[in-house]
Amino acid sequence: MQRTKISKLLEATELDVDIHVKGWVRTKRGNKHVAFIALNDGSSIHSIQIVADPNTIGEDLLKGVSTGASISVFGKLVASQGSGQKVEITAERIEVIGVADPEKYPLQPKKHSLEFLREIAHLRPRTNTFGAIFRIRHAMSYAVHKFFNDKGFYYWHNPFVTGSDAEGAGEMFRVTTLDPTNPPLTEDGKVDYSQDFFGKETNLTVSGQLEGELGALALGEIYTFGPTFRAENSNTTRHLSEFWMIEPEMAFYDLTDNMDLAEEFLQFLCQYALDHCADDLAFLEKRLIDEDKVKPQAERSPMTLTDKLKFVVENPFERLTYTEAIQILSNSKPNKKGKFQFPVEGWGTDLQSEHERYLVEKHFKKPVILTDYPKDIKAFYMRMNEDGNTVGAMDILFPGIGEIVGGSQREERLEVLTSRMAEMGIPEEDMDWYLDTRRFGTAPHSGFGLGFERLMIFVTGLSNIRDVIPFPRTPGSAAF
Amino acid sequence: MQRTKISKLLEATELDVDIHVKGWVRTKRGNKHVAFIALNDGSSIHSIQIVADPNTIGEDLLKGVSTGASISVFGKLVASQGSGQKVEITAERIEVIGVADPEKYPLQPKKHSLEFLREIAHLRPRTNTFGAIFRIRHAMSYAVHKFFNDKGFYYWHNPFVTGSDAEGAGEMFRVTTLDPTNPPLTEDGKVDYSQDFFGKETNLTVSGQLEGELGALALGEIYTFGPTFRAENSNTTRHLSEFWMIEPEMAFYDLTDNMDLAEEFLQFLCQYALDHCADDLAFLEKRLIDEDKVKPQAERSPMTLTDKLKFVVENPFERLTYTEAIQILSNSKPNKKGKFQFPVEGWGTDLQSEHERYLVEKHFKKPVILTDYPKDIKAFYMRMNEDGNTVGAMDILFPGIGEIVGGSQREERLEVLTSRMAEMGIPEEDMDWYLDTRRFGTAPHSGFGLGFERLMIFVTGLSNIRDVIPFPRTPGSAAF
Repeated sequence: MQRTKISKLLEATELDVDIHVKGWVRTKRGNKHVAFIALNDGSSIHSIQIVADPNTIGEDLLKGVSTGASISVFGKLVASQGSGQKVEITAERIEVIGVADPEKYPLQPKKHSLEFLREIAHLRPRTNTFGAIFRIRHAMSYAVHKFFNDKGFYYWHNPFVTGSDAEGAGEMFRVTTLDPTNPPLTEDGKVDYSQDFFGKETNLTVSGQLEGELGALALGEIYTFGPTFRAENSNTTRHLSEFWMIEPEMAFYDLTDNMDLAEEFLQFLCQYALDHCADDLAFLEKRLIDEDKVKPQAERSPMTLTDKLKFVVENPFERLTYTEAIQILSNSKPNKKGKFQFPVEGWGTDLQSEHERYLVEKHFKKPVILTDYPKDIKAFYMRMNEDGNTVGAMDILFPGIGEIVGGSQREERLEVLTSRMAEMGIPEEDMDWYLDTRRFGTAPHSGFGLGFERLMIFVTGLSNIRDVIPFPRTPGSAAF
Repeated sequence: MQRTKISKLLEATELDVDIHVKGWVRTKRGNKHVAFIALNDGSSIHSIQIVADPNTIGEDLLKGVSTGASISVFGKLVASQGSGQKVEITAERIEVIGVADPEKYPLQPKKHSLEFLREIAHLRPRTNTFGAIFRIRHAMSYAVHKFFNDKGFYYWHNPFVTGSDAEGAGEMFRVTTLDPTNPPLTEDGKVDYSQDFFGKETNLTVSGQLEGELGALALGEIYTFGPTFRAENSNTTRHLSEFWMIEPEMAFYDLTDNMDLAEEFLQFLCQYALDHCADDLAFLEKRLIDEDKVKPQAERSPMTLTDKLKFVVENPFERLTYTEAIQILSNSKPNKKGKFQFPVEGWGTDLQSEHERYLVEKHFKKPVILTDYPKDIKAFYMRMNEDGNTVGAMDILFPGIGEIVGGSQREERLEVLTSRMAEMGIPEEDMDWYLDTRRFGTAPHSGFGLGFERLMIFVTGLSNIRDVIPFPRTPGSAAF
């Protein structure tokens, strides 16, 4: 008899039918006369209750039905007697497929700290919290692909091992097959990378943007979605050494087109979560409320998970320039009263998360897009504005998190680009391929980047980035 | 006035309306009285014809309208006078956005070899052939996500930098930030990886399967889709150092369930290509026919592109054991007449592509699934059959290409798995996390791997794997 997934059973309308389920035991309780087994197969945050009569099923067999064991259950789907669920299963036969010794299985039914669960990242997807997170992670990934596919964008597969090192987005990991103790050397005592696997020094990509531009300037509208690597020694709750980025890049888009797209994209993602992840969100929302209860007021989430998602979906994003934002912040109460950890000193400084959150949560009470940043705090490829001091950049700011998207119109004018590169000490010869796009059929174009884990933190309410990716890589840690 | 994508215009039914298009010039021909410009914006293999009167548009301006230039065109969409297209644009105003000096732009309108285009991989997406390939690459990627999402699978994000080196699927790339000339050494003169970024030796993943099993044994049904790395010094038309793999992994699936899923998946992908990539496929099909004309009969494609896709969609896959296949091959005409490059020696040898293709193209005239391979030619994690000699593996064979999918039921029995690992010299202590899934709630499960570029070769008819990925990485080559 074909097994049915638990998510399907929980939606079932036809009762008193024979069914077959398989899954893992979350809990077992009861007494000599009846056992209640909560069974989960990963298809839903909800387990289904199995009601088992020890006389029918066998007391000995039920001993093997402990938390973590995998079992196969044949029985009848019936209306539930208890509260909390609509249906349950009256077991007619149970097979224990794989036991889980209660003395050894680490995931016993009690509250585990996120720190402890991080140590057993190979087992934590079996918990309610991480099941919910990783189902949402899937839903958000699919939403990314669906959004761009439906708009006629092409998924563009950039390289991960790269011989290009000019983007300067961060420290890089070297990729090599040279003998580590005894690498070949050149005459002047440096490592001879011409003998390395790729015949040159290669690193893991820090951003696919430059290669993405190559795609956009041929296919029109592309996006990337894949891992990105930064070898920064930052052991914080906001940094990973390996994380996923989404980087759309569009020919013939100016900065306004870029903002319109990014706003529509973020609203689509948040609406998708509301529409497709209601049960998992409800679980995480309750979790967050419980967590917040023991925190001081200042550290609590400004809104519930659902309210945050609706805040994005229902409010048109406020758009203003960096210069306007600096004025607002300079004159703001927290700045005047010295409440910001980093006082706003004036035009030219980079904004901190506390400033970004102030604009979103206190001042505008909407998501905010800041544009036209000082050129000196932005990358070389951003389009120079006519004032000569600012570039056509845009950052999108969200509640609770600050910057979630960073983008810009790209500098399409060859001379402006090369003079900017010279200013910043980026050698033209390394970027010849990139400059070719400006030499031949150049066109205005724009793009932005969304750190996928940043989005996941926003949607799930988890506060440590290590908890929204299955196997986090951080300085000193690469288990599994 | 909002611009319209060319793909939309080509489908337009409303004529004699004002339109605005942007794109890149593919060709310009004509005379003093009229210019015909083929304009492409990447949204379709088809360019739209712009008809420009030099008197209206300006002769000088038209000089800048050369192959590769980007232009903006305002005009009227009208029924086409010529054959080959239904609509064309009568230009009222043209702006040259970015020129492309005909003396320097490498993609002049003439036939370029694939080898030449590989050297300018940053520009080749602007050609018809690579535009078609990369649009199909997008469509196939999206089809992968759609197939699994619609079935309730979760996209599972495995790590790419891995501290695990036990899978043994191939040579690995080291990932490091240690000083290359002067790495820290331990007392016995080896590199002290405890001082490396992750506190241990780390490499790029060769397969996400083992981590995928962790996901499946918690969430039920997962799939991976991302880059995979092999540091093999294989300079062939079938190998890349960086390629994309799709690896679904499913709890409670036996080998038959696994085959059913893989067959349905491959048929879905091929049907999706037929349904969504008709124009690009038609272009590549004609290309392949032209290429084949100059080849000796033996090297020609066994079928056209469309016929190959239909062959997969319309034929239920033939399923037989490796042992049965060896008998068929041993007794086959080409084996008896010495026509195989590698004679079939008998049970226990690995099959070559020529054998696989014989079974598919000549013997069964259907896609073929071979099962139950000798344990000695398969990986340690495949489930041991009762005969003690074979494992529950399955390979799917396609026309023109041979193996396209490899999978197996996984060994879920702890003792069988550990004794197999001992036989093959895989240290248990390195795999403790993997073995935990067999210690706690183990369950029958299965999975398979599809090399995405292998699929792309099948669908596009290109013969060199370097031509189906935007930026190929091969020994000695990592440009861009």
